[in-house]
Amino acid sequence: MKILPLAAGVAIACASLAWAADEPIQPIVPPSRINAGMAELGKKLFFDPRLSKSGFISCNSCHNLSMGGSDNLPTSIGDNWHEGPINAPTVLNASMNLAQFWDGRAKDLQAQAGGPIANPGEMASSHTLAVAVVESIPGYRSEFKSVFGKDQVGIEEVTAAIAEFEKTLVTPNSRFDQWLLGKKDALSGEELAGYKLFKESGCVTCHNGPAVGGNSFQKLGVVEPFHTKNAAVGRSAVTGKDADRMHFKVPTLRNVELTYPYFHDGSAHTLKDAVDTMARVQLGKKLSEADNGRIVAFLKTLTGEQPSFKLPQLPPSVEATPQPQPFARKS
Amino acid sequence: MKILPLAAGVAIACASLAWAADEPIQPIVPPSRINAGMAELGKKLFFDPRLSKSGFISCNSCHNLSMGGSDNLPTSIGDNWHEGPINAPTVLNASMNLAQFWDGRAKDLQAQAGGPIANPGEMASSHTLAVAVVESIPGYRSEFKSVFGKDQVGIEEVTAAIAEFEKTLVTPNSRFDQWLLGKKDALSGEELAGYKLFKESGCVTCHNGPAVGGNSFQKLGVVEPFHTKNAAVGRSAVTGKDADRMHFKVPTLRNVELTYPYFHDGSAHTLKDAVDTMARVQLGKKLSEADNGRIVAFLKTLTGEQPSFKLPQLPPSVEATPQPQPFARKS
Repeated sequence: MKILPLAAGVAIACASLAWAADEPIQPIVPPSRINAGMAELGKKLFFDPRLSKSGFISCNSCHNLSMGGSDNLPTSIGDNWHEGPINAPTVLNASMNLAQFWDGRAKDLQAQAGGPIANPGEMASSHTLAVAVVESIPGYRSEFKSVFGKDQVGIEEVTAAIAEFEKTLVTPNSRFDQWLLGKKDALSGEELAGYKLFKESGCVTCHNGPAVGGNSFQKLGVVEPFHTKNAAVGRSAVTGKDADRMHFKVPTLRNVELTYPYFHDGSAHTLKDAVDTMARVQLGKKLSEADNGRIVAFLKTLTGEQPSFKLPQLPPSVEATPQPQPFARKS
Repeated sequence: MKILPLAAGVAIACASLAWAADEPIQPIVPPSRINAGMAELGKKLFFDPRLSKSGFISCNSCHNLSMGGSDNLPTSIGDNWHEGPINAPTVLNASMNLAQFWDGRAKDLQAQAGGPIANPGEMASSHTLAVAVVESIPGYRSEFKSVFGKDQVGIEEVTAAIAEFEKTLVTPNSRFDQWLLGKKDALSGEELAGYKLFKESGCVTCHNGPAVGGNSFQKLGVVEPFHTKNAAVGRSAVTGKDADRMHFKVPTLRNVELTYPYFHDGSAHTLKDAVDTMARVQLGKKLSEADNGRIVAFLKTLTGEQPSFKLPQLPPSVEATPQPQPFARKS
């Protein structure tokens, strides 16, 4: 149901692409090749808390599709109320990221999807257990068979389906994209002034492309150090290179109005704070209140159409399904 | 959007009501008078974790509308991973209950909705804080104004909207209801035999009416004591009468295939176990495996059409919104 409108969006985007090519930000082009059956299966899995040890936490718990694909918390709550180490990045438009997680340790959405399931501080299951749960449920078994054409389910199929669903989670048709595509009155004078400032101040050096970010790793704290109590070291945890310390994936600014709080430590609660800090530590600039307001006004034009679909119904467990262990650690 | 098909269902149900009146179970008649705007607002609130102190737990966390309106856990997980004292009853068809909660301490859905929000072991907020959060959010403020016609939001309006949404959560058109309404081939021979046994064995004494339960308080353990480690004393906690000890609201059996595990302590993981225990402690009967299977087959025909609606999009918080306190107790 979701796929056809997206395809129509592609056609519109392509027709006007020549115009948009003059700008450092491009309109969102929805994916044209989605396996609809696989995405529907992935949607169920995305909402299914049985992929967690407790039976309580689903992908949607921290990447809540009612709230910009995020949890709107500084860092996330995991199994047994574990305090997560880092801010949950939005899943919206995540297919456009050059890699997944703040430090880019997963090469794509499928590789990412397996992480939280087996992370003891997040969903706290294991790939073996999650697959055993899914395989035990007749409703899932038949759907996997129909999508993948084989009887055995493995973690590869589970994560492939989740990733396929996540590829549909794009947010086209923001007011900014309408403007990019030629609708000159889509933005107000203040919003346009904010976009001009966004380009001239240097924000656009890192926040560019269709996702307005997500396409490079950059050092956090170029001009001034970024002060944080958060222990994450960023990209160096992956590369082992000291030079990559405090380098993080530049987050997308698409739907940034919805994905508060900001930064990997969730320390900025408002766009105003986030813009102020970025200007200072990345660009060595002190923005006036009016200029800050203009940039924030521009950023709010990046809110696109949110994913629109029916709440999925999950196939029920049966006697053979491994039971959730919500309180195992406390007993 | 949801309201019109339900209204059509009423007409069908009424036309055949004379036929169904011969049976102790009646088809589900969807509510005819729903305030659509209020229900839409209530749907957002039902899915909004900002009604909890942590910003993580919503009504839907424990009454998950992807999973039969329940959490499929023996007892629920609350704020700071608190182990809940009792099994979360399904919200589906809850409008048909004579009162809410296992002990009936809330007279209706609106009175119920305020409970978990302020319960320290559930959502752990307060009515004052929840209202302050809602009032701070421009998207909510305008919607409350449009629905209730006044500027001030109070807990009465919040719970009225949630209750109005919950009234829409009925599940008509189960195979059993189709049979009640005259479609003779809607049930198999085994399912019909199960229904006959359900009536003749005495189950129907308590599980009757449109919700197949929900309309009386009954003693749990009539013939034999019901052994449990759960501390709940049932109805006597409300009435103060010792005679009401271990009297609980009879749960609805609608969608019982989806609302495992069973009983107020969540101790029965399968319908087979639940039927076996009920026959023994309530009726003094030992069912044969075949008869147990027939009753279970009948019970599975009570699964109706699940609520079908688009995942709601929540209006974003702003600078003035009180921030969630997910880890306040640990810091």
